[in-house]
Amino acid sequence: MANANMNCWPLIVIGGSSERSQETMGAFQEFPQVEACRLYSKFSARPSSIEAIPSIIEKAVRSSIYGRPGACYVDIPADFVNLQVNVNSIRYVECCMPPPVSMAESSAVCMAASVIRNAKQPLLIIGKGAAYARAEENIRKLVEQCKLPFLPTPMGKGVIPDNHPNCVGAARSRALQFADVIVLFGARLNWILHFGLPPRYQPDVKFIQVDICAEELGNNVRPAVSLLGDINAVTKQLLEQFDKTPWQYPPESKWWKILREKMKSNEALSKEFAFKKSLPMNYYTVFYHIQEQLPRDCFVVSEGANTMDIGRTVLQNYLPRHRLDAGTFGTMGVGLGFAIASALVAKDRNPGQQVICVEGDSAFGFSGMEVETICRYNLPIILLVVNNNGIYQGFDTDTWKEMLKFGDATIVAPPMCLLPHSHYEHVMIAFGGKGYFVQTPEELQKSLRQSLADTTKPSLINIMIEPQAMRKAQHYLQEPRYETVYSG
Amino acid sequence: MANANMNCWPLIVIGGSSERSQETMGAFQEFPQVEACRLYSKFSARPSSIEAIPSIIEKAVRSSIYGRPGACYVDIPADFVNLQVNVNSIRYVECCMPPPVSMAESSAVCMAASVIRNAKQPLLIIGKGAAYARAEENIRKLVEQCKLPFLPTPMGKGVIPDNHPNCVGAARSRALQFADVIVLFGARLNWILHFGLPPRYQPDVKFIQVDICAEELGNNVRPAVSLLGDINAVTKQLLEQFDKTPWQYPPESKWWKILREKMKSNEALSKEFAFKKSLPMNYYTVFYHIQEQLPRDCFVVSEGANTMDIGRTVLQNYLPRHRLDAGTFGTMGVGLGFAIASALVAKDRNPGQQVICVEGDSAFGFSGMEVETICRYNLPIILLVVNNNGIYQGFDTDTWKEMLKFGDATIVAPPMCLLPHSHYEHVMIAFGGKGYFVQTPEELQKSLRQSLADTTKPSLINIMIEPQAMRKAQHYLQEPRYETVYSG
Amino acid sequence: MANANMNCWPLIVIGGSSERSQETMGAFQEFPQVEACRLYSKFSARPSSIEAIPSIIEKAVRSSIYGRPGACYVDIPADFVNLQVNVNSIRYVECCMPPPVSMAESSAVCMAASVIRNAKQPLLIIGKGAAYARAEENIRKLVEQCKLPFLPTPMGKGVIPDNHPNCVGAARSRALQFADVIVLFGARLNWILHFGLPPRYQPDVKFIQVDICAEELGNNVRPAVSLLGDINAVTKQLLEQFDKTPWQYPPESKWWKILREKMKSNEALSKEFAFKKSLPMNYYTVFYHIQEQLPRDCFVVSEGANTMDIGRTVLQNYLPRHRLDAGTFGTMGVGLGFAIASALVAKDRNPGQQVICVEGDSAFGFSGMEVETICRYNLPIILLVVNNNGIYQGFDTDTWKEMLKFGDATIVAPPMCLLPHSHYEHVMIAFGGKGYFVQTPEELQKSLRQSLADTTKPSLINIMIEPQAMRKAQHYLQEPRYETVYSG
Amino acid sequence: MANANMNCWPLIVIGGSSERSQETMGAFQEFPQVEACRLYSKFSARPSSIEAIPSIIEKAVRSSIYGRPGACYVDIPADFVNLQVNVNSIRYVECCMPPPVSMAESSAVCMAASVIRNAKQPLLIIGKGAAYARAEENIRKLVEQCKLPFLPTPMGKGVIPDNHPNCVGAARSRALQFADVIVLFGARLNWILHFGLPPRYQPDVKFIQVDICAEELGNNVRPAVSLLGDINAVTKQLLEQFDKTPWQYPPESKWWKILREKMKSNEALSKEFAFKKSLPMNYYTVFYHIQEQLPRDCFVVSEGANTMDIGRTVLQNYLPRHRLDAGTFGTMGVGLGFAIASALVAKDRNPGQQVICVEGDSAFGFSGMEVETICRYNLPIILLVVNNNGIYQGFDTDTWKEMLKFGDATIVAPPMCLLPHSHYEHVMIAFGGKGYFVQTPEELQKSLRQSLADTTKPSLINIMIEPQAMRKAQHYLQEPRYETVYSG
Repeated sequence: MANANMNCWPLIVIGGSSERSQETMGAFQEFPQVEACRLYSKFSARPSSIEAIPSIIEKAVRSSIYGRPGACYVDIPADFVNLQVNVNSIRYVECCMPPPVSMAESSAVCMAASVIRNAKQPLLIIGKGAAYARAEENIRKLVEQCKLPFLPTPMGKGVIPDNHPNCVGAARSRALQFADVIVLFGARLNWILHFGLPPRYQPDVKFIQVDICAEELGNNVRPAVSLLGDINAVTKQLLEQFDKTPWQYPPESKWWKILREKMKSNEALSKEFAFKKSLPMNYYTVFYHIQEQLPRDCFVVSEGANTMDIGRTVLQNYLPRHRLDAGTFGTMGVGLGFAIASALVAKDRNPGQQVICVEGDSAFGFSGMEVETICRYNLPIILLVVNNNGIYQGFDTDTWKEMLKFGDATIVAPPMCLLPHSHYEHVMIAFGGKGYFVQTPEELQKSLRQSLADTTKPSLINIMIEPQAMRKAQHYLQEPRYETVYSG
Repeated sequence: MANANMNCWPLIVIGGSSERSQETMGAFQEFPQVEACRLYSKFSARPSSIEAIPSIIEKAVRSSIYGRPGACYVDIPADFVNLQVNVNSIRYVECCMPPPVSMAESSAVCMAASVIRNAKQPLLIIGKGAAYARAEENIRKLVEQCKLPFLPTPMGKGVIPDNHPNCVGAARSRALQFADVIVLFGARLNWILHFGLPPRYQPDVKFIQVDICAEELGNNVRPAVSLLGDINAVTKQLLEQFDKTPWQYPPESKWWKILREKMKSNEALSKEFAFKKSLPMNYYTVFYHIQEQLPRDCFVVSEGANTMDIGRTVLQNYLPRHRLDAGTFGTMGVGLGFAIASALVAKDRNPGQQVICVEGDSAFGFSGMEVETICRYNLPIILLVVNNNGIYQGFDTDTWKEMLKFGDATIVAPPMCLLPHSHYEHVMIAFGGKGYFVQTPEELQKSLRQSLADTTKPSLINIMIEPQAMRKAQHYLQEPRYETVYSG
Repeated sequence: MANANMNCWPLIVIGGSSERSQETMGAFQEFPQVEACRLYSKFSARPSSIEAIPSIIEKAVRSSIYGRPGACYVDIPADFVNLQVNVNSIRYVECCMPPPVSMAESSAVCMAASVIRNAKQPLLIIGKGAAYARAEENIRKLVEQCKLPFLPTPMGKGVIPDNHPNCVGAARSRALQFADVIVLFGARLNWILHFGLPPRYQPDVKFIQVDICAEELGNNVRPAVSLLGDINAVTKQLLEQFDKTPWQYPPESKWWKILREKMKSNEALSKEFAFKKSLPMNYYTVFYHIQEQLPRDCFVVSEGANTMDIGRTVLQNYLPRHRLDAGTFGTMGVGLGFAIASALVAKDRNPGQQVICVEGDSAFGFSGMEVETICRYNLPIILLVVNNNGIYQGFDTDTWKEMLKFGDATIVAPPMCLLPHSHYEHVMIAFGGKGYFVQTPEELQKSLRQSLADTTKPSLINIMIEPQAMRKAQHYLQEPRYETVYSG
Repeated sequence: MANANMNCWPLIVIGGSSERSQETMGAFQEFPQVEACRLYSKFSARPSSIEAIPSIIEKAVRSSIYGRPGACYVDIPADFVNLQVNVNSIRYVECCMPPPVSMAESSAVCMAASVIRNAKQPLLIIGKGAAYARAEENIRKLVEQCKLPFLPTPMGKGVIPDNHPNCVGAARSRALQFADVIVLFGARLNWILHFGLPPRYQPDVKFIQVDICAEELGNNVRPAVSLLGDINAVTKQLLEQFDKTPWQYPPESKWWKILREKMKSNEALSKEFAFKKSLPMNYYTVFYHIQEQLPRDCFVVSEGANTMDIGRTVLQNYLPRHRLDAGTFGTMGVGLGFAIASALVAKDRNPGQQVICVEGDSAFGFSGMEVETICRYNLPIILLVVNNNGIYQGFDTDTWKEMLKFGDATIVAPPMCLLPHSHYEHVMIAFGGKGYFVQTPEELQKSLRQSLADTTKPSLINIMIEPQAMRKAQHYLQEPRYETVYSG
């Protein structure tokens, strides 16, 4: 129903509920579904009749894509399926127009430009909202014209390519902690950004918030300037300011020097890990070899704990809206669904484009059976299961066997451990795809090369790593989850 | 907490709940209040500790006034009242900034101006949202500069004075039905505006929607142009278009002629009713006499069925945000609370300003005891109870007595009838205010004059009207509720 | 729909909601009402068609009276009002049978009897559940046969008359605190019974719980014996035990002596207050004079803070289900509704029976306008407003005036104070009933006598008491609310 | 926490939520979980402090097993994990007592016995509630003493062994349709029992309902007698009636004859299907061979559409509470979780006992990855995947390939089809268990024999059947789902 030209994808869940005439009688799967979806959706409704369906769907689509986007629920009772209506009693409802665009107040834009000009240690943070707003071109212009350092949030990656020289992702903690002016493009000050509060930020850091959602502005921190509007439109307004009175942040500033040094040392550390010859491999070794072969235009889907967190720091995104991960809510189990959706989009718009889905072994367990769907529709997906035999950490086979001598596995096995040495690749083989079990960098390289080359079948590469990989790196780490050795 | 300069009033309900340590034990008034308020509020939360109170209040205030305004709920458990904390553990939270302002996309503004310029039978509708946005000055400029006819919604009255020559309120139905271009300033296409659909509108009418809420745009009808943003800012953008290329709608057009004629005939009809000498009085007689003495700067509060609907057509508002009535939801019982709130604002900002509260007798019954509050704080409120002994219609005393001969009142009295001849003025007398019982135009004039003159005490005028007043007028009426003889 | 013989009254709220075809469009009073009622009702549903109404009503009625009784909600959309159906398409649904009765397990009954027989300081607590179960006859037999002391909860009053020699209400705190075995008949261990925990109870007190609701058993305290079933049926089972092997608790035990002494001293103290000659009167003086004239068979309805709490200790109930007050939830505003409902029941079943409604002045303010309903239907209700000019305490007129000299009443008047010297009797006069303003015991006696004698009209007696009445008694009081000087 | 002797298993979900101090700030996985669980649980709460945990857990356990059993939710915020409290501040809370037992009123029991004695065509229906109440011994006595025909509901199977001569499961439809008196033991008149209404029942059939839940009594149909109480206790009461005045239903009645004939013809039809030699196998062939080897004491877990429905008619249960399936709600995905839970119970109470989990291929897809858990803890589970390449029906490989020639699988493949020829056994092999792929009765027999014999490892048998199996049988079928050829 969404207009092909509108470049946005409504998220509507259509649910089937029991027959209306059996409600309260104990019907099959009777439940107040519209009510149950209330907390999870922007709009949740059941059409009161067949005639009302077009209008309800229009409302769901529009609610989903107008304002801050979100999921909507439409409930179709079972008896609708076979109900008949006179076609003339249906009021035809046109698809809604593309989402309306709003801009920030001019005076606020001036003030924002002025705060940026006066910044000593500026930083741009590019969030998911910037990607949704398709603001990539303008944000890139701003970064390049003003020579500003930027940092993407997990799903803001790719709005500007990760390998852009102004990207300071490799010095993330340092950048956040010492910036004096931070411009947020569609990035919320939630737990991912440590709420914008000390000690992770300067107490007097000035935030400039650019957001489509008024209620988000000022959340947790009082911003220096709030710019309410479509993120792309507002970025254009900012650009106009810097067009009128050109300005650039000195590339030889001390701030740039600090950031570059930190990036350098973090990248060196990361490479040191990556190039370790010891087996089993560690996370960095794995991701460096994946990154080497990663197609520029592929979708990267990811979920897991360390797998998602460390993977994000190594795997580069070059295109906006091409990274999908567990997101702000950190829900496990979304990976294969995201991969399937991405593959369907790719098939439709860009045949040949591939989807690389990087899964922790535990995360894969939540929805691994979707491999059947992948094979049924023969989707161009390569699943990489980074397998450390557990969540955060597991045991190797020998230790596991030793441990089980002390008793029943249901009692002695720690809750975060999974069965060691699981052959996840068999799950792919079960449905006719290609499966690989790899234990060395060479095997990884080879199997990935084959997978990328043979596009006739999906494949799964089960990559064994050191089960206690993180423990060894831990003394370098300052922070848990969503922060890594590498993030500086 | 709201900044005195921000010109907006957050609506926060602070609720007390039972002691946390007794939850699930059957504590006094134990209930999941935060959850129960979810459907009714933009933000509903309980601070997790005393320390969290400032931040939660800030969030409630901000949520209440940012974006589309709305009520918020903050829950304070009983044990907080006596809890002590170290003052140093409290993080000081500044009041949020005034609501961020956004503007419409320039191209959409151009298109809107062009649609208006090409309109044959244009109409502006001024809603509550325009009042909230304090857009009065700019909307008035637009109306006068372009010579456009306008119509206020119930709580949009006063954004431009009702007696402005371009106000076509007296030809409401006609204006809606034949306009070919309608610009909505913060007015929703809900039941009050008949959903924007035929037969109340032309099937091909072009709507231009100006609204702060993206999800409202396109609701029920696909607009010709959507202008998302602060209504005042967007109006300014429209004005700039008409400043650049001046244009005005021809004052001698056929459309203006049709509207003026309809207004004239409706006003004549309305006056005919008003000047009827028969007793008991009818609604029009009552409202005309009230209107004659209505202070220009007073707040007009109103609730009821016919009382609110007919009263709205006769009683003029000259100032924005000075009419408060049962609103979109049509909730009865809000009148006295609104009157008290208005009086407190008046006391604070404009001593001498009065509040006229026009209540149907049934509506007054919902919260009449608030008269005690009015008298306790000696608030400058004049309550006018328009008393027809029932809802929509009642009986006179003789008919009532006759009817009761047929049996017990609980059985024979129709559910919409109230006790005839109730002396509501005694409710005011009970608390030391002044009460009047009036049956003739002269008594009404005199008592109102006295009430307005003596500002030392609140007063209540109980105005007896023909109990079946509407029935007699009914054949002139085309529509129920929110539409009257007068609205044509 | 409820069977006239079933002796129980379903509580169904029928709500009207907006037209189904306008849902999600912004219909008049559109709201998810079924969902909004979920937390407040045992059953909340909307019939899916006219045909479904009988079956949904049957379910609501049955849910309301089967198991633990409770309110139910049925939603009727506006468009049902004028919808027509073929009468043959309606499936006729008979009224449900009277609620099913269950009994406790025999072995548990034996154990309970044995625990009672071995009690040193036994106590029965008679709750609202016993009244709902119509267990009065059997509980009275048990009390008299076994010579046990008993205590009613607020709405358990009257199951056995309050003036029964075994009622130890006047030694409530003492009885709770030192009992070693307590039998709860339909009384919950919630805040009203101090959760059944020390220091208000012995740490090793043995509770025997008799309740219709399984999930209530063991709540907050692990009982010695749980008897699940209909409270009347279970009481009969207990009686059979004491019939088989007769036993009685020694009337000359030390426990009875302690309780009788405490009752005597509390009653003396209470009378001392009551017979004070000083004016304004205090609570005890007022209630003693009311009690003297209270008809044996009247309904007593009450709400307020001190008014309800102290009133309950003095005003005697002689019949079960004849006291209605703010109950466990302590909701203010229910008084006049309860009085009206009681009067309608009385009219129907026992013409001549009167309703005495004892209201605190603040409580009266919540729903005082219902006086119109009382007068409209000429219901046999006498409203007594016990007026201390505030909640818990107020000011006399002189102090009030003095205080206002310091500034605006909205600022200087404490939030719990009401306007002094309010003439609530005028609210009754306004609607044609009789109003009295009384300041002395003699005036109170006389006005009450007249009100009781003249049954042709409702009346309201506004009883002025010492505004700071409780403060003076406070040093005798051990506990707040629901506990009084008298309860000792 | 549940008492080992209480023979009942509380169902408590402990959920982790975000840190309390970060609530409303956008914390990790912040969500109102207690509120979100309200609709799904009998009790949903968050302890307000560490100290409150024991008491909240006691309430959750008690609520879960008292009255009608159900799931409960307890929310533990993240910050509790590392919080410390003084151990002395914790009030120790004992585990609740076993659920209280109630019995039906004696007069109702008499009336029920009398109705049964006068029945011409009686039928007992044994529901899940009878199993929960552990009423097996008494219900069996009743059946045998009175020689009554009985029918189990899906999860009532095994309360009396399915091969009991009085079980008329093989004539289900017939029995329901012509019975004149039906006694329901813990079975609800919901969709599974066709709501108790015509045309599936006689219009004047007399229901005798035995249930623990008062509100269930009379639901959808007005029963002749309602027996409220613990189902085992009430059955004992009924038995006492038939002990006092012995009675039995004549085994040579016409009703028994009708039922036996129908059973015979249905069983013959079923065997005819089962013994068909054609390949691929049909459902009946598969289930007959499974049934032949089914250990008498195993748990049977099942989910799916036809697999569950047809399997239930062939696979016999001999023990109560040993069948777990998708139940009333028909939720897919529960199978492997149920199997794991059963296996843990078996391990603990009856080592050597096995779990047979019969899965449709689609159903297996919902939670197939739990095979990892099964292997990790090496649980005694045999998974049988009955594989027809789809839901209700799929395609064979050749037809599938043919179909795909017409276009992309995402478009041309019908939504209910799965990938043909999936090797689900590889999912077991992936984790070190044993996998079998079987296509003939002989392979099925052999692989099942091996799986049952080798208890050192879990196994999965992937059983290929005719993809359109049901279609062929359809003309014998009278009813959809939960009804089969066999059920007659």
